[in-house]
Amino acid sequence: MIGTVYLVGAGPGAADLLTLRAARLLAQAGVVFHDALVPQEILSLVSSANRIEVGKRSGRYSTAQTFINKQLADAAAKHKVVVRLKGGDPMLFGRAHEEIAFLRKRGVPVEVVPGVTAALAASAELGLSLTRRGLSRSVVFVTPRTGEGEAENHWVDAALAADTAGIYMGAGQAAEIARALIAAGKPASTPLVVIENASLPERRAFAGSLADLEQTAARSSGGPVLILLGEVYREAAAWSIIEPCHAPSSFSPTAPATTNGRSRSAGS
Amino acid sequence: MIGTVYLVGAGPGAADLLTLRAARLLAQAGVVFHDALVPQEILSLVSSANRIEVGKRSGRYSTAQTFINKQLADAAAKHKVVVRLKGGDPMLFGRAHEEIAFLRKRGVPVEVVPGVTAALAASAELGLSLTRRGLSRSVVFVTPRTGEGEAENHWVDAALAADTAGIYMGAGQAAEIARALIAAGKPASTPLVVIENASLPERRAFAGSLADLEQTAARSSGGPVLILLGEVYREAAAWSIIEPCHAPSSFSPTAPATTNGRSRSAGS
Repeated sequence: MIGTVYLVGAGPGAADLLTLRAARLLAQAGVVFHDALVPQEILSLVSSANRIEVGKRSGRYSTAQTFINKQLADAAAKHKVVVRLKGGDPMLFGRAHEEIAFLRKRGVPVEVVPGVTAALAASAELGLSLTRRGLSRSVVFVTPRTGEGEAENHWVDAALAADTAGIYMGAGQAAEIARALIAAGKPASTPLVVIENASLPERRAFAGSLADLEQTAARSSGGPVLILLGEVYREAAAWSIIEPCHAPSSFSPTAPATTNGRSRSAGS
Repeated sequence: MIGTVYLVGAGPGAADLLTLRAARLLAQAGVVFHDALVPQEILSLVSSANRIEVGKRSGRYSTAQTFINKQLADAAAKHKVVVRLKGGDPMLFGRAHEEIAFLRKRGVPVEVVPGVTAALAASAELGLSLTRRGLSRSVVFVTPRTGEGEAENHWVDAALAADTAGIYMGAGQAAEIARALIAAGKPASTPLVVIENASLPERRAFAGSLADLEQTAARSSGGPVLILLGEVYREAAAWSIIEPCHAPSSFSPTAPATTNGRSRSAGS
């Protein structure tokens, strides 16, 4: 038999931000290969017998990727539905291309199921549009990370030219990011928000400006972090800690906290 | 009573690309206000008695928006769950800001539920990553549309600087888009894909280059169109009509059509 490998976006983290299609495939899957970053809330939808973690750590990508590719192809020989579950969306900052190319070469059918990417979830929680009319007509998603031997990364130019920028996987390089953008001409006063664990109960958001990005990012506590940058965040810049105004899992209506400039502690 | 207004992303069109949260809210909603562009497949999830279309046409935005804002606030006085359903994601190219600001001013609780945006759905269908390693570390989403009296739109600069660009709401201005990008220095040979009705059964995709964008876009037949531009589409450029290799609603495994350069008719 030959099954289909589904590259499925797990979304930003909250289980109910999975798509209906993703949830159905997780229920049908004979085996689910998942990233280290997919949160427990989502993994708990899959019986532990069928879960295989294929976490990659930067620095030893290529070996790990070859092994994952082979595992996926082998699994399709045993299962009708094989799911490769990826944080966020599979086609934005992942290794989907390598997996798709490898599987197709072997004649294994592949389908991709899109997901909600972190920048959209973070924007929803903040209640701040990425493309607020009058302030922004473009939003760029970049990552400062470049693999060994890869083409030059022009992320600074891209972040500079767009009205709003979302910087993925940049928390560990906050100081360098700020330096590079300011050196290229972005005003140090450009407002930004650093969001950690968007959509999860433990989410936190910190507002600041490009000048103090290093300190702002340092307030996060090790979860996945997204940096959002641009004039649309000016109204958030006065806040110290932003308590996202929504409680996604329960839908409890809370007072609007993100448009009145009040600073609330993360625990409230 | 005072209900909560949920600005909900309807996703790209396919009903099973709604998030679980969106589907639950549609089932709970006392009333659903939806854009003209939300497809029938999704509207059919809501009883017709509870649906109100609030379509906006360009040119008469502001009057319509004020009226929509008021309708939402009035509905929250009558219903516990009010849904404002928006195509794609609410925080990307919509009027969410105006609605959120109006409702908060009136003390109406608002929450935003993110959705899968068209560029992610289109990339999934094509099997082509927006940020293929070695070719792209940045993707920008722009729209050439600017409202009357709004700040200047720098979409050309943004599209030029990013490795990959997704141009929303640009089908009607294809000739101007190509002219503006080429004049700014983008090579006329830059590969692109024009995708219509991403994720829906009637989806179609056409590959070309910036030089022939006008003709390529003219092959679409009036559905929502996204233009995807950049080196990651070079492998698609040889194809005439791209039949997306996936059948999202049924998950029928089909032969891989998008990596081998074969041109297939849309009906196959």
